[in-house]
Amino acid sequence: MAQSGQAQRRVALVGGGVIGGGWAARFLLHGWEVRVFDPDPRAQARVHEIIAHGRRSLPALGDVMLPAEGALQFAPTLAAAVSEAEWIQESVPERLELKQRVLQEIEATCPPEAIVASSTSGFVPRVLQQGARHPGRILVAHPFNPVYLLPLVEVVATPANDPALLTHACAVLTGLGMFPLCLDKEIEAHIADRLLEAVWREALWLIQDDVATTAQIDAAICLGFGLRWAQMGLFDTYRLAGGPGGMRHFIAQFGPALKWPWTRLMEVPELTDALMDKIANQSDAQSGHMDRATMERRRDDTLVALMRALKARDVAAGGVLNRHDAALARAAGVVRHIDQIGDLARPIPTLQRVVPTDWLDYNGHMTESRYLQAFAEATDGFMEIIGCDRAYIAAGGSYFTAETHLRHLAEVQAGQSIAVHTQLLAGEGSKLHLWHEMHAGGVLLATGEHFLLHVSLDTRKSSPPAARLADNIARLARAHGALPVPVGAGRRVGDNARPQ
Amino acid sequence: MAQSGQAQRRVALVGGGVIGGGWAARFLLHGWEVRVFDPDPRAQARVHEIIAHGRRSLPALGDVMLPAEGALQFAPTLAAAVSEAEWIQESVPERLELKQRVLQEIEATCPPEAIVASSTSGFVPRVLQQGARHPGRILVAHPFNPVYLLPLVEVVATPANDPALLTHACAVLTGLGMFPLCLDKEIEAHIADRLLEAVWREALWLIQDDVATTAQIDAAICLGFGLRWAQMGLFDTYRLAGGPGGMRHFIAQFGPALKWPWTRLMEVPELTDALMDKIANQSDAQSGHMDRATMERRRDDTLVALMRALKARDVAAGGVLNRHDAALARAAGVVRHIDQIGDLARPIPTLQRVVPTDWLDYNGHMTESRYLQAFAEATDGFMEIIGCDRAYIAAGGSYFTAETHLRHLAEVQAGQSIAVHTQLLAGEGSKLHLWHEMHAGGVLLATGEHFLLHVSLDTRKSSPPAARLADNIARLARAHGALPVPVGAGRRVGDNARPQ
Repeated sequence: MAQSGQAQRRVALVGGGVIGGGWAARFLLHGWEVRVFDPDPRAQARVHEIIAHGRRSLPALGDVMLPAEGALQFAPTLAAAVSEAEWIQESVPERLELKQRVLQEIEATCPPEAIVASSTSGFVPRVLQQGARHPGRILVAHPFNPVYLLPLVEVVATPANDPALLTHACAVLTGLGMFPLCLDKEIEAHIADRLLEAVWREALWLIQDDVATTAQIDAAICLGFGLRWAQMGLFDTYRLAGGPGGMRHFIAQFGPALKWPWTRLMEVPELTDALMDKIANQSDAQSGHMDRATMERRRDDTLVALMRALKARDVAAGGVLNRHDAALARAAGVVRHIDQIGDLARPIPTLQRVVPTDWLDYNGHMTESRYLQAFAEATDGFMEIIGCDRAYIAAGGSYFTAETHLRHLAEVQAGQSIAVHTQLLAGEGSKLHLWHEMHAGGVLLATGEHFLLHVSLDTRKSSPPAARLADNIARLARAHGALPVPVGAGRRVGDNARPQ
Repeated sequence: MAQSGQAQRRVALVGGGVIGGGWAARFLLHGWEVRVFDPDPRAQARVHEIIAHGRRSLPALGDVMLPAEGALQFAPTLAAAVSEAEWIQESVPERLELKQRVLQEIEATCPPEAIVASSTSGFVPRVLQQGARHPGRILVAHPFNPVYLLPLVEVVATPANDPALLTHACAVLTGLGMFPLCLDKEIEAHIADRLLEAVWREALWLIQDDVATTAQIDAAICLGFGLRWAQMGLFDTYRLAGGPGGMRHFIAQFGPALKWPWTRLMEVPELTDALMDKIANQSDAQSGHMDRATMERRRDDTLVALMRALKARDVAAGGVLNRHDAALARAAGVVRHIDQIGDLARPIPTLQRVVPTDWLDYNGHMTESRYLQAFAEATDGFMEIIGCDRAYIAAGGSYFTAETHLRHLAEVQAGQSIAVHTQLLAGEGSKLHLWHEMHAGGVLLATGEHFLLHVSLDTRKSSPPAARLADNIARLARAHGALPVPVGAGRRVGDNARPQ
């Protein structure tokens, strides 16, 4: 097979819809030469748009550089697309006679050793191989939208496929950053789409019967089990829901519900001892190496990380968290403006928070960049206090940090409550010189010295702040001017370590 | 109702299993006094364990401090638990006659104005209200495990419930950081569990028929649609899958599959024009305010953020990304050891990466803490090069950063490719003085000056590095000693802004 390490690898994509375009992005961004054939004149624009989405998101999904991007061509004919390809991916509409005809056309001109993979959501490979000259090269590789981001690809073969070809196909897909899930048995809709189809049918009933709207169903998904399933599947989730008794206890507890009208889709397998054993044993094989407490901590820490990622983007569960934070801040009377500060002559409390589990590093303590993140949050708190709030920023003014000096004085653990107080060292014109001190339980953990410049967000250059901000800064500068210069301010890196 | 802002609020939890314990954690960590009643002698240990999980994860899920934790009591009798409670949450096993009996016992002693909520997964409130003295105070509030983290709670009422009571109940749940999803119609298993039950039944068939194992099904979920559903539900996902034609096109394209054997659960509503209109119109109402490109970018950026959160924890799709990164690094021949470096007399390339979309801030550029994160990654690269790798750290030695001086010289955007080169300014004994420069396309973006100390991970105090590391550091120190001192090194914060 034409797969020498450095040689240019070529893929032909037959069908340039949402799925074909997604494949184009994934192959291209992994350095393959991509030839697309689609008779639809709108396909080029669509594929370009999807590749643009892919370029925006895939190269920095991981932390290692992808190979140089490959070249993209739109082939005038199917034959021109497939003639030199090592891999051919068919992604035409889900009509059997169409797929079979296209596969035959592909086979007529593609290299004899090429792999021909179908993106089919539902057809089994046995049926796709019918009438083929070389059925052994045709298999199913079913991806999920967006193809350039989601790792899952279901690989389904038949006895006609050489196991070596299957191994090679999986290596190609793994090389694209995907997770080939090899099915042991052909079945319509494979695995994922069967589960999806069950949900889809149930959801259609809910809408048909006026029980729920699409928005209610979507909320039920993405604020509940969708979060669970991003990090743990159905069976591992239920293993934990079973408590100390695990999977066996869960089935015993919820098995009876299978006989209750909990769904419109009532056909169920009989819950025999043999089926119960099979499920419990498979679950043990899958996750028996972890004890329950470990699995629960892992689940919780991952849910926290996911929900905090959503929070930073204000999406789905993240929106709920942000609204809750706003309500908590209101209830606690968190200071947001200079006029609410009681004693101006002391460093201002600008942050109080608990260290989340996703702020730790391999040394088991808060990682260095999170100190700066906490100080940046404190700077944001300071900004609100002087009036540089969302509305001000939306109007085109903001502060950019030009320089920072951090001193890490003590370790911080997850769950610790930290507080930052801020002293204004100097503030004149566009310049702002801040001093943050971070404490936990009376211990000084870190200091941050920051130099910021007010900028125009249009020109991205320094500019004077609005008079309202300048007044607030001047008030604070007068009040803080009486404070002593903090120990550690104005130092160079290494001064700490030198004899004083 | 007893809900004055500052007064101590009391909740009674009847049933201390996985769900009751989860409620205990959520109420307690939001400042409520919690009384638990469960006749099972193991309940106390279980509830304490779940609260410990909650304490570990909930307080730093958001960015604002929760109120001071409430007090926890285990009541000797149900009456003692509920007698002074404003909210009573029933979470006993899913047996109707048991739930009805417990609800009657609760009603016999609870305050007349208390809300009595059932955690039931499946029973409709109408049935739970049967035989109650005050049916109007009983409703369903069905949460999802882990209750202290997942926001979804399904609220189901009957015409017997006063709308004001329902509003108040939703306010209480929102106050706990939850998202009350109010159902307009009573239905067994509510919404989420109907969908889950459909998946569960289909999954049982797949196992029964030896099509897939629990591990394969879980992989199909959490590497594919589980990721999608953490940030967007079924209908929004399909709206996008429909391409420019949206929901209507999706249904037209995949509607026929409803007649195909894609699931064992074959009963489906007839896809009439009326049903199609209903779904498409509801979808428009839900998401028609966003155009497709906006929605796709939002989806992709959120998927990147979620998958990168999983990557940091090496869980589910994050494991796939880490394995892919390792393969890419191997293929690209990324330098991992001092002996692989060609020219020791130049600053060492320690990082090359693309800036991910989740590294931006409200000013539209890479946020300050991510500069330090990139420099910390470069420091990690330097560490591997001198031999301070995973194995070395696992054996108990590591470096802690003591001090950092950052200068931000130019803005960086998402998608830009950045490179860091590192110069060893000094290295002797436990001390290491590093200089990082970050470039993109020939432009110097930032510098980082870092002072690190070698420590023993047992004592957490400074200690000399192993001889092997000391030798590598000495080699580099000799080679880099000939390099000029970089412009900007040894400066204080503000030196840049002073006239030179």
